[in-house]
Amino acid sequence: MTKIRMGMVGGGEGAFIGAVHRWAAALDCDIELVCGAFSSDADRSARSGAALHLPPARVYASYQEMMAREKTLPTDQRMQFVAIVTPNHTHFAVAEAALRAGFHVMSDKPATFSLDEALSLRELVAETGLLYGLTHAYAGYPMVKEARQRIATGELGNVRKIVVEYPQGWLAGREEESGNKQASWRLDPQQAGISCTIGDIGVHAAHLAEYISGLQISEMCADLAPVVAGRTLDDDGSILLRFNNGAKGVLIASQVSVGEENNLRIRIYGDQGGLDWSQQEPNTLWLKWNDRPTQMLRTGMPYLSELATANTRTPNGHPEGYLEAFANLYMAFAGQIRARESGCQPDARAMDCPGIEDAVRGMAFIEHAVAASNSEKKWHSLPQY
Amino acid sequence: MTKIRMGMVGGGEGAFIGAVHRWAAALDCDIELVCGAFSSDADRSARSGAALHLPPARVYASYQEMMAREKTLPTDQRMQFVAIVTPNHTHFAVAEAALRAGFHVMSDKPATFSLDEALSLRELVAETGLLYGLTHAYAGYPMVKEARQRIATGELGNVRKIVVEYPQGWLAGREEESGNKQASWRLDPQQAGISCTIGDIGVHAAHLAEYISGLQISEMCADLAPVVAGRTLDDDGSILLRFNNGAKGVLIASQVSVGEENNLRIRIYGDQGGLDWSQQEPNTLWLKWNDRPTQMLRTGMPYLSELATANTRTPNGHPEGYLEAFANLYMAFAGQIRARESGCQPDARAMDCPGIEDAVRGMAFIEHAVAASNSEKKWHSLPQY
Amino acid sequence: MTKIRMGMVGGGEGAFIGAVHRWAAALDCDIELVCGAFSSDADRSARSGAALHLPPARVYASYQEMMAREKTLPTDQRMQFVAIVTPNHTHFAVAEAALRAGFHVMSDKPATFSLDEALSLRELVAETGLLYGLTHAYAGYPMVKEARQRIATGELGNVRKIVVEYPQGWLAGREEESGNKQASWRLDPQQAGISCTIGDIGVHAAHLAEYISGLQISEMCADLAPVVAGRTLDDDGSILLRFNNGAKGVLIASQVSVGEENNLRIRIYGDQGGLDWSQQEPNTLWLKWNDRPTQMLRTGMPYLSELATANTRTPNGHPEGYLEAFANLYMAFAGQIRARESGCQPDARAMDCPGIEDAVRGMAFIEHAVAASNSEKKWHSLPQY
Amino acid sequence: MTKIRMGMVGGGEGAFIGAVHRWAAALDCDIELVCGAFSSDADRSARSGAALHLPPARVYASYQEMMAREKTLPTDQRMQFVAIVTPNHTHFAVAEAALRAGFHVMSDKPATFSLDEALSLRELVAETGLLYGLTHAYAGYPMVKEARQRIATGELGNVRKIVVEYPQGWLAGREEESGNKQASWRLDPQQAGISCTIGDIGVHAAHLAEYISGLQISEMCADLAPVVAGRTLDDDGSILLRFNNGAKGVLIASQVSVGEENNLRIRIYGDQGGLDWSQQEPNTLWLKWNDRPTQMLRTGMPYLSELATANTRTPNGHPEGYLEAFANLYMAFAGQIRARESGCQPDARAMDCPGIEDAVRGMAFIEHAVAASNSEKKWHSLPQY
Repeated sequence: MTKIRMGMVGGGEGAFIGAVHRWAAALDCDIELVCGAFSSDADRSARSGAALHLPPARVYASYQEMMAREKTLPTDQRMQFVAIVTPNHTHFAVAEAALRAGFHVMSDKPATFSLDEALSLRELVAETGLLYGLTHAYAGYPMVKEARQRIATGELGNVRKIVVEYPQGWLAGREEESGNKQASWRLDPQQAGISCTIGDIGVHAAHLAEYISGLQISEMCADLAPVVAGRTLDDDGSILLRFNNGAKGVLIASQVSVGEENNLRIRIYGDQGGLDWSQQEPNTLWLKWNDRPTQMLRTGMPYLSELATANTRTPNGHPEGYLEAFANLYMAFAGQIRARESGCQPDARAMDCPGIEDAVRGMAFIEHAVAASNSEKKWHSLPQY
Repeated sequence: MTKIRMGMVGGGEGAFIGAVHRWAAALDCDIELVCGAFSSDADRSARSGAALHLPPARVYASYQEMMAREKTLPTDQRMQFVAIVTPNHTHFAVAEAALRAGFHVMSDKPATFSLDEALSLRELVAETGLLYGLTHAYAGYPMVKEARQRIATGELGNVRKIVVEYPQGWLAGREEESGNKQASWRLDPQQAGISCTIGDIGVHAAHLAEYISGLQISEMCADLAPVVAGRTLDDDGSILLRFNNGAKGVLIASQVSVGEENNLRIRIYGDQGGLDWSQQEPNTLWLKWNDRPTQMLRTGMPYLSELATANTRTPNGHPEGYLEAFANLYMAFAGQIRARESGCQPDARAMDCPGIEDAVRGMAFIEHAVAASNSEKKWHSLPQY
Repeated sequence: MTKIRMGMVGGGEGAFIGAVHRWAAALDCDIELVCGAFSSDADRSARSGAALHLPPARVYASYQEMMAREKTLPTDQRMQFVAIVTPNHTHFAVAEAALRAGFHVMSDKPATFSLDEALSLRELVAETGLLYGLTHAYAGYPMVKEARQRIATGELGNVRKIVVEYPQGWLAGREEESGNKQASWRLDPQQAGISCTIGDIGVHAAHLAEYISGLQISEMCADLAPVVAGRTLDDDGSILLRFNNGAKGVLIASQVSVGEENNLRIRIYGDQGGLDWSQQEPNTLWLKWNDRPTQMLRTGMPYLSELATANTRTPNGHPEGYLEAFANLYMAFAGQIRARESGCQPDARAMDCPGIEDAVRGMAFIEHAVAASNSEKKWHSLPQY
Repeated sequence: MTKIRMGMVGGGEGAFIGAVHRWAAALDCDIELVCGAFSSDADRSARSGAALHLPPARVYASYQEMMAREKTLPTDQRMQFVAIVTPNHTHFAVAEAALRAGFHVMSDKPATFSLDEALSLRELVAETGLLYGLTHAYAGYPMVKEARQRIATGELGNVRKIVVEYPQGWLAGREEESGNKQASWRLDPQQAGISCTIGDIGVHAAHLAEYISGLQISEMCADLAPVVAGRTLDDDGSILLRFNNGAKGVLIASQVSVGEENNLRIRIYGDQGGLDWSQQEPNTLWLKWNDRPTQMLRTGMPYLSELATANTRTPNGHPEGYLEAFANLYMAFAGQIRARESGCQPDARAMDCPGIEDAVRGMAFIEHAVAASNSEKKWHSLPQY
């Protein structure tokens, strides 16, 4: 048995998220980067590939070239899947090219530039029968898995209220005018789409709420806006939520909350108990009760569920972090590929990776959140697609 | 100079909030309880008075009797102010009787049963020229004072976003059916008014947001409801806010958030910095910055403002709690009475006690929050009264 | 039934600990300050008494005068006990005078200047049959009571290890040279005795360890020293401990730990579970287990022991602080006086106040800690007296 | 440029620490596992190698075979260094074989079974001129680097006191009798050496104290013992420390502190400020001051030192964990190898990896801690070797 072979589109010199994908894929020693089209600038792509210790023949000047050439290699040498880490507006085109060339796809989030693209992508995935993964990395934490299990088993009772918040502070000034590239493209409708903050982080919050609760957002009342003068896209938003079981909720996403780092936090209250999890202290999950002491659950402890344990590498008290959560998604996706290749059904752990339905759901959330905010009507439906 | 003389209406055997007022008033050895009408049941009132070491002659069977008799005592013996700790629906009548009899009033919150009553009360206060205090106790904490100062000095810049939340869990079951009196009357429209949760705790959250920020809520988009089946009043609510400077906000109040105790918390983000304060750890105030380390400010430290220091009794590291915060309001109110009696202007510290304008503002908030929730329009104005 | 009548020696204008005693005594509206000798300067004593609203006839120029005069008053008017809040080196003389005049004594800590004095005081208490209380205030916190109960019931198993630490930072500079009176007298052997830090705060840590665990320190290996140049008394100390059941421990006390406020913390590990309590967050008690989630116990919750509940005033989520803990000792001591006067046995709650045995034990701890530190032998016994 | 080629001795199926080394080495995509002798059982070694996707020819039945064969491979194919992850008592023999065969060594901690072996190893390293790294992983955390920098720059002033503690609870029962292999060998003098707890975790605490402070422990007064009946090696220990600049300290290590996970924490107090870092929340470093608010420093923030930043992969708010800290040591060691191969001086970052001097120092600490505990003399010197 050999390592799973990965190609990468994007992620050249100086790019950030490409490195995260490479670290996450490498961690478990089960996936190997074998080729890449790291930049649309051929020289830059070549330099990036060399720095990554790739043979020059496997470093391409464009994703089109990569798909065409890799297809011609022997099956035991060609890449098996493509990791897409380009800017948002190109996700769809690259994914389409990969799928049409017969390669599985692991895409950075958001899946596409628009809901329409996401719906087309879903058709294409169905048509090709290939695998598709989406890196909603926060769903990879062991204690997020545990939270999901505790809800699923009914331990907290019927879910009544969900408060999910995601404050950051890094867009509180006019960073887009001072050469911060991350800020520039995220605030540019041509590259980011119809939303900055909701598209960048609000969608993570929504995904987490649905992933842990097992519920779906059915209605929204949204107030998004650019808080910093001169911007056209939202840098802050608050949304009242209703879920498909009648539960209520609040989602707060902000990139102008000065001093906040990456403070994703979720609280879910059932009629029997509540839970509380924060991404910045990811190895702790709080369970709260009215008549018993609050419990602090910790990654790696023997009382956790199988799903949490299967997503944990180190013994309790040895903190797992963001890269391990990210790697858990890659581990699951690799499991799907191996199952596919061996003709087996993937197990539950392999299936526990966001996929094409999450891609569609995320884009629907973004588009409807913006529409809800623009509406003078109080409540706006978020339909199933 | 002698102690300030206080009478009390309500707060007999078994009542809770009456004891809090007595402890708070007694703490600084500057206010003396001299009389009371502790219950509308004469025997119960008498027993309560005896347990409080009052002479029988100063324990009355009704507040009407108390007002009538105390008025006839020599000015250096009669009570100087009345503490009102009865259920909400009687606040107005007792306050009116006290003011008409010439006594200052310190009232538990909410001030009245309705906005109309609050407006009438304001007229009466103006007409009599007497003093009126309202125990929004959370405004009494030293670090809340500090937070207010930090905003006032502009250190955090222009306020852009306020998130204030107040989750409790004690009404998550059907406590009103199992003999919990607090639950029964708060969920009974005849005694509590048009709202349970917003009237009980949401109004504290709103007061705190306005007190610290120095801003006023101008618009609301509210979603209140009884979450537990069989109730007619709200036990949970979330409100999107807009403030009079254009800042945005979210207010969450809930009494069905299982496992939460009394978790009032406020975060305010200006364009330069953010702050974060939690009532359950009241001696810590966090200041957050994008380019500098987060700062942990602590009660009693030398770098705090004069207003915070003036509301602190013990050295740093000796925790001050809820009763000390409550006592700070009594200390301020006593200062107003002393200033009045000596013909001086009260100083800033004495004036720093919620009063009749806060009473009106609170009742307006409650009524408009309920109206906003009942409206299908997205935004509802909260006018000035 | 009337209030308990308290006299005070010390605590005049500008003194700190006197105010703490008055606040603590006043809080429950059950004790009344009726007289005082607030300073050995007659004018200062008079001014202090006036500010406290006392009639001039009950404000004395010396404690000797106070004892003599109060004794002659009718029994229903004279003070019932004396609160001693003078500097350490006078505690014994005042207590002796009070006891000989027939008054109960509530003394600030440490009880005396030396172990010899404490032993004499114990004889005097026995001889007079009067009541004696000592304000080891940290033993008054509800969650300290809870911790004690959890050990007593055996829930944590046999105690194996105790780590108690008490770092402060306020003596890290040469405060004694810059007019800080607290620093000056505590570092002066004439006024403070043979130890600064161990006598001031180390003794609190030792008391807490013994109070919660129900064990006694039997051996010590100590390293005390003045860390700041120019001092003769210790400002820092670490002590290895052995307890009378064989358990081991560490006690760390320091007043040169820059940036620490008043960070008393204790951890106790039995063979079944562990506990962790910190004075700066006093309403939380952690219970830790190897096979179950850590539990966070909180003041005011229904699952707590009777002893904790009896020492709690406000509902859960309304923080109790240092003054409430202090007041719990006064409440207990008042209960002892009432029981005595009515010829009953005091109940368990009233008896739960440090007394003359704690006074002797504390002075023994201080003297033996200093001796242990001065010894070149590794282990030094702490005998029973 | 190609990846650095690593061989591994130990770490076969079911072993734990081998996996940690492989993850840490793989993370940065700069080191490749090319061969291994994973078990002294040839079949087990083969199966382990296959699971790791190694070609059968590079999976060896013994470390002796591995050294012999690899030496014969072309220099651009043979391994460049050996990672040693066998049980402690074999570390020396494997390291010796590797060095004599011309391979650099990265060893798990502790370096050897005894101080004598460590001294021999140091001679061998000097003789061969090869590189030696030791995985004191906690020194790899970014905020530990920051702490070291803050001390080095003098920001906290002269160090006066160090409190380092490392409580765990997993040996609180008789785990060695119930099939827990980790417990069995660590408590067996034949495999673990003269100490269990001090050798396993106390040495980490000592290393961290010296690494951050830049000081050296010069004297110890130790109390180590088996707390659980039936053991011969220590499972708990407390040590009073003196450092070479006169600073005092306390080191507490315990594996019977029920409910503690892996709670390594260090506090260092200088005459200007204090710092506080905990391994279980590794991305936060607290700086404490007497006259300014406590500061919370966070991994990834722009105000950190170059050394901290160079050891950070993800943006602030994306938690880095234990594996990233471990990987930082591998990254540094790989840097040393690259520098050696290119004939350059390694930069400061590459040199920032524990090495042979730390190996000797650690073994000296263990042996002298045990001797100090066995001594009846109070203070015992820890010499330089």
